[in-house]
Amino acid sequence: MWPDMRFCELLGLDHPVIQAPMAGTSGPALAAAVSNAGGLGSLGCATLPPQRLRDEMRALAERTNRPVNLNFFCHAEPKMDADRHAALMDALAPHYAASGVAPPEGAPSAPFAPFGAAHLDYLLEQPPAVASFHFGLPDAAAIAALKGRGCRILSSATTVAEARWLAERGADAIIAQGWEAGGHRGVFLDPAHDAQIGLFALLPQVVDAVDVPVIAAGGVADGRGIAAAFALGAAGVQIGTAFLTAPEATPKPHHANAARAGTDDSTRISSAVSGRPARAHRTPWLDAMARVEPAPFPLMYHYTAPLQAADADRHHFSLYGQTAALAPEGPAEVRFRLLIEDAARAMT
Amino acid sequence: MWPDMRFCELLGLDHPVIQAPMAGTSGPALAAAVSNAGGLGSLGCATLPPQRLRDEMRALAERTNRPVNLNFFCHAEPKMDADRHAALMDALAPHYAASGVAPPEGAPSAPFAPFGAAHLDYLLEQPPAVASFHFGLPDAAAIAALKGRGCRILSSATTVAEARWLAERGADAIIAQGWEAGGHRGVFLDPAHDAQIGLFALLPQVVDAVDVPVIAAGGVADGRGIAAAFALGAAGVQIGTAFLTAPEATPKPHHANAARAGTDDSTRISSAVSGRPARAHRTPWLDAMARVEPAPFPLMYHYTAPLQAADADRHHFSLYGQTAALAPEGPAEVRFRLLIEDAARAMT
Repeated sequence: MWPDMRFCELLGLDHPVIQAPMAGTSGPALAAAVSNAGGLGSLGCATLPPQRLRDEMRALAERTNRPVNLNFFCHAEPKMDADRHAALMDALAPHYAASGVAPPEGAPSAPFAPFGAAHLDYLLEQPPAVASFHFGLPDAAAIAALKGRGCRILSSATTVAEARWLAERGADAIIAQGWEAGGHRGVFLDPAHDAQIGLFALLPQVVDAVDVPVIAAGGVADGRGIAAAFALGAAGVQIGTAFLTAPEATPKPHHANAARAGTDDSTRISSAVSGRPARAHRTPWLDAMARVEPAPFPLMYHYTAPLQAADADRHHFSLYGQTAALAPEGPAEVRFRLLIEDAARAMT
Repeated sequence: MWPDMRFCELLGLDHPVIQAPMAGTSGPALAAAVSNAGGLGSLGCATLPPQRLRDEMRALAERTNRPVNLNFFCHAEPKMDADRHAALMDALAPHYAASGVAPPEGAPSAPFAPFGAAHLDYLLEQPPAVASFHFGLPDAAAIAALKGRGCRILSSATTVAEARWLAERGADAIIAQGWEAGGHRGVFLDPAHDAQIGLFALLPQVVDAVDVPVIAAGGVADGRGIAAAFALGAAGVQIGTAFLTAPEATPKPHHANAARAGTDDSTRISSAVSGRPARAHRTPWLDAMARVEPAPFPLMYHYTAPLQAADADRHHFSLYGQTAALAPEGPAEVRFRLLIEDAARAMT
């Protein structure tokens, strides 16, 4: 049924559908359900402490022997100066006060590290079918080592220039991430000037620019979207929001509730919580925080995590995309099958 | 070849393709070429003085007897207070000085009026097949009068809520305008909170929400885009940027050059020139103006027109969309035929 089989053939998949690696929200149960159904399940590993990463990799290996995708972040090590810290503490003082939260003490520290030697060692020990990255790629030696162990390399592009950059460095497939996507935007070449390209415009231009298969992400949540992605030249789709509310996923309660109530216009892009632009449920707090210059990703969590912990009603950071309302219902495997059946109808 | 014929049948068109009414840039030659080729040519009438409007309507009637679309703006009458004026003159003083331009004198006046009684009289005298509107709709009496003379009514929606609002007030078809679109965003229900919805997400949700045919706009510039729009549920497409550089169009030289050089990431949304958000060629001037709180549309032109007139290299305001690079070449009729042939290939 698929007009382009390149991505299926690259990985031995039945269906060219990736479950998006939603850090903190996916997990072995969701990833295994999608892989066992014939797609590519993904584990969002970027924010996991080392022991947790080992545990989740083991749990996933116990649940499926089909191809899986482990996803990591390649952001730069954040640097922070004292002036910026002082300005942020001032800007956030009213927010801490309004929620009765003690301001965080001491110098900011990052809650997780970018992809590095330790992550690479884990992957080389138990190489997954796919190692994927957000915010660029690891260095050439790491890519060569992963490829030497049979891993396919994927990463996200938000512009044609980013897609070319990834293809030149050995990406085996490129995820064209549209403006509609929930979660963190993968923008990495010029984060200060996000070009904000909608999937409808981005996808065909990335397809024209690179020779590797292109995966459509952002706004794909039903069979119509899958059919449209293939019409625009995609060789596969990546779907996150449509799996976010499945029972196998692990969003926090506020997050799940927000995604369930999501409409076309209920999200906004904000850099205020993590330090990088992400699409999340629009709240008065996020609107107010638009005037704050954030700390570099992910140091900004040092300032915002205490607010979220103390008063989640006001400060929840619920990442989902612009097509939450189109998501199917039921367990992940049921959702997956509905998506495939719906796409088959739309493509004939 | 079209999987949905409702829009063709509504108007007696061969092909459900609207040439977007680009105010100041379309004109009778372009509109007639598209209508004569079997699509719906459009005249952007919103900014025309009354005598020019009569002349263009006459010129268009001489060139085609096929259905045409006349487009008008339904913005609110702008109001400006003295404090805001003073703040704007201060904010723009460095820009005037840098280009050696005399600051505009006197109170700001709008360069054109919203759709009103005079426009309605013209339309009732010589009713076009379609009267279309941006920024909402005229009042119920005007809509009833136009419908009484056989006009079909179209308007643009940037959210599901706007689409429902338009359908409830009698729109015969609704243009779902994605974030990718060049020119002014049609946002009208809550302009202060633009939901910025990409076409891929907006289109199927509008299709699900209303019973009238939905036209896809923003990011459609080749056959793949047309096929994808129909896969997402559209009954037609509206295409602007792909006609902008046709010889029949009338963009200013800077505008045509910018659109010809347009890439996926060469535009940005800016309210700084007109007072309403519009997608235009990204320039250092537009980036700098992002920090200025604009006057209400279209009064902001009072402050920016002198800059554009005196130093267009720096201050040109070149409206086009995120798929300029996909536009076909040649005269409008050739572009139209290429689009249709390309769509036919993509849909089989």
